[in-house]
Amino acid sequence: MKREEVFNFSAGPSVLPRPALERAAAEMLNYNGSGMSVMEMSHRSKFFQEIFDSTKAKLKAALNVPDSHEILFLQGGASAQFSMVPLNLMEGGTADYAVTGNFANIACKEARKYGTVHVAADTLRAPLACIPGQSELDLSPDAKYFYYCANNTIYGTAWGYVPETAAPLVCDMSSEILSRPVDVSRYGLIFAGAQKNMAPAGVTVVLIDKALAGHEAPYTPLMMSYKTMIDKDSMYNTPPCWCIYMLGLVLDWLQTQGGVAGMEAIKHEKASIIYDIIDNSRLYRPCARREDRSDMNVTFRTGDADLDAAFAKEAQAQGLMNLKGHRSVGGLRASLYNAQPMEGVQALAAFMKKFEVEHHV
Amino acid sequence: MKREEVFNFSAGPSVLPRPALERAAAEMLNYNGSGMSVMEMSHRSKFFQEIFDSTKAKLKAALNVPDSHEILFLQGGASAQFSMVPLNLMEGGTADYAVTGNFANIACKEARKYGTVHVAADTLRAPLACIPGQSELDLSPDAKYFYYCANNTIYGTAWGYVPETAAPLVCDMSSEILSRPVDVSRYGLIFAGAQKNMAPAGVTVVLIDKALAGHEAPYTPLMMSYKTMIDKDSMYNTPPCWCIYMLGLVLDWLQTQGGVAGMEAIKHEKASIIYDIIDNSRLYRPCARREDRSDMNVTFRTGDADLDAAFAKEAQAQGLMNLKGHRSVGGLRASLYNAQPMEGVQALAAFMKKFEVEHHV
Repeated sequence: MKREEVFNFSAGPSVLPRPALERAAAEMLNYNGSGMSVMEMSHRSKFFQEIFDSTKAKLKAALNVPDSHEILFLQGGASAQFSMVPLNLMEGGTADYAVTGNFANIACKEARKYGTVHVAADTLRAPLACIPGQSELDLSPDAKYFYYCANNTIYGTAWGYVPETAAPLVCDMSSEILSRPVDVSRYGLIFAGAQKNMAPAGVTVVLIDKALAGHEAPYTPLMMSYKTMIDKDSMYNTPPCWCIYMLGLVLDWLQTQGGVAGMEAIKHEKASIIYDIIDNSRLYRPCARREDRSDMNVTFRTGDADLDAAFAKEAQAQGLMNLKGHRSVGGLRASLYNAQPMEGVQALAAFMKKFEVEHHV
Repeated sequence: MKREEVFNFSAGPSVLPRPALERAAAEMLNYNGSGMSVMEMSHRSKFFQEIFDSTKAKLKAALNVPDSHEILFLQGGASAQFSMVPLNLMEGGTADYAVTGNFANIACKEARKYGTVHVAADTLRAPLACIPGQSELDLSPDAKYFYYCANNTIYGTAWGYVPETAAPLVCDMSSEILSRPVDVSRYGLIFAGAQKNMAPAGVTVVLIDKALAGHEAPYTPLMMSYKTMIDKDSMYNTPPCWCIYMLGLVLDWLQTQGGVAGMEAIKHEKASIIYDIIDNSRLYRPCARREDRSDMNVTFRTGDADLDAAFAKEAQAQGLMNLKGHRSVGGLRASLYNAQPMEGVQALAAFMKKFEVEHHV
């Protein structure tokens, strides 16, 4: 089967830019004349240090990260950050959590181990998935931080604004990082698992205001201290070298596409193609409130679980992969991350129209 | 530069079997007809689940892991295990630690956060790096576990025996796993960072007696609970998919080499070639006591730091890479892991003889 025949709508790990994969294949046995694969290199070697430094510099440039913030490459995915954030920032006090999706909910539960959690908003039981407005946020006066997840991968919602809070903002941007410009200076801490918009699974990017580090609880595991990782430039021990290398290749590709501004220009166009079909359909129903819809993860359903399953199965037979919704909510989901080509979106649109004609009674 | 011209003696990340790298390159854009790279696959997909299951099965077969023990693929390297072991197994009680190297020492310090540490042996200040004998181990009667590091990468020593203790054995096998058969049933827990003998950096293998799980401290981060990881078969969240895939390819190669028995048959032969030169040299001195020497990491020095540096530099110019000792101890080190070909060992031997002739006064 030729790769061109497949479009991958997985919510993560997800499609990567083909030029990045081609370079990885070409350099596999001999990176830059080293005679070694990147996977074989000492992380303390000159060769790898250059990969590390240049990847960090490219990310700093792509997101315009200010000098007040350190860029960390960690392990354990966003789930490790669910613990690391309260272990380091909560200081046994109170933190505000906005619960707008599955992962924010897990993060909120995890923080209860380490201090007092105040739920600033909870939209999990809303009939249509949604995001609270600024005036709906119940902020506590003494919060150490305000936590939210910018894009809810499972529900298909995204925060259309940056919350105004007195406490530092902590944001899980796993499923939308690099899809648009971000004013990093407005955040105390941003984290993102790489396997959606950045790189293969195995590295987590953290952008942290250095002033926030150094207050970890005494029982914080050594690998979960932001201060240690800042002091050691993410190399307290061997970092996930291959994933960092791949991130560098993806960032090279991103630059050829106009960077995060280029991604922002096209992401809404891609998502609108699918949302327009849903909004004008008698078969498909949206899962998220119109004004809170995500451009990264388009969620919908037919209202009939068997028909949803038939949709995903027929789509897959035609090379449109991984359209099944998350097992916790069912339905259908098309993830349209940066590396999802317009051709993939158009192929999905054509399939949706054809499926509707065939299956709408 | 052709790859054949380079031999990589890095202590980790380190040389990988060429057939594994070649397959990774060949399958990069289209794994097994999926039309996708392994890096793009949902970890919940049928394609990746097959990679995961077969890698686990190959490892179970290679190390003859009994059904009492679960195989986990985690993140964070051995350093994360330094915390995870006491968080889960110490139960606020006492644990015995044998401190025979840098990493055992860090693990020992880390455990003090979570309970009472009893130092059963400490050889860090010995003039020649060494391993304590069974009768030299000072065991506490109520230890929750006995911790040791089977092979000390920096010092170049290895435990030539399995300690006899009433408490369950916990062993860091990062730098010798898969180099010889192990009776896993004698251990409560074995862990190993992959980047020496198994796979690229980014996955840590844990073999744990399931009976030991489920007693974690209440402040244990969710990603650091062995019980959670056992219950979720290492997929509480997205695992380091690419590294698991690479481990599978390395295990395929291992089988063509006669498995761990095949590795054991050759590892001592490889190391002896270098140790014989050291023992018969008037320039090189060993860093480790003869009976405790590691076959994986051969450590030596000239006694002159400048000459050590010249050795590493000249060797590198001839394609013998990464022979500098660890920055904490200096000297020289040749790591002879499974994937180090005999040709590499012979090339190093020839260089050592030539260097001695040129530099011995």
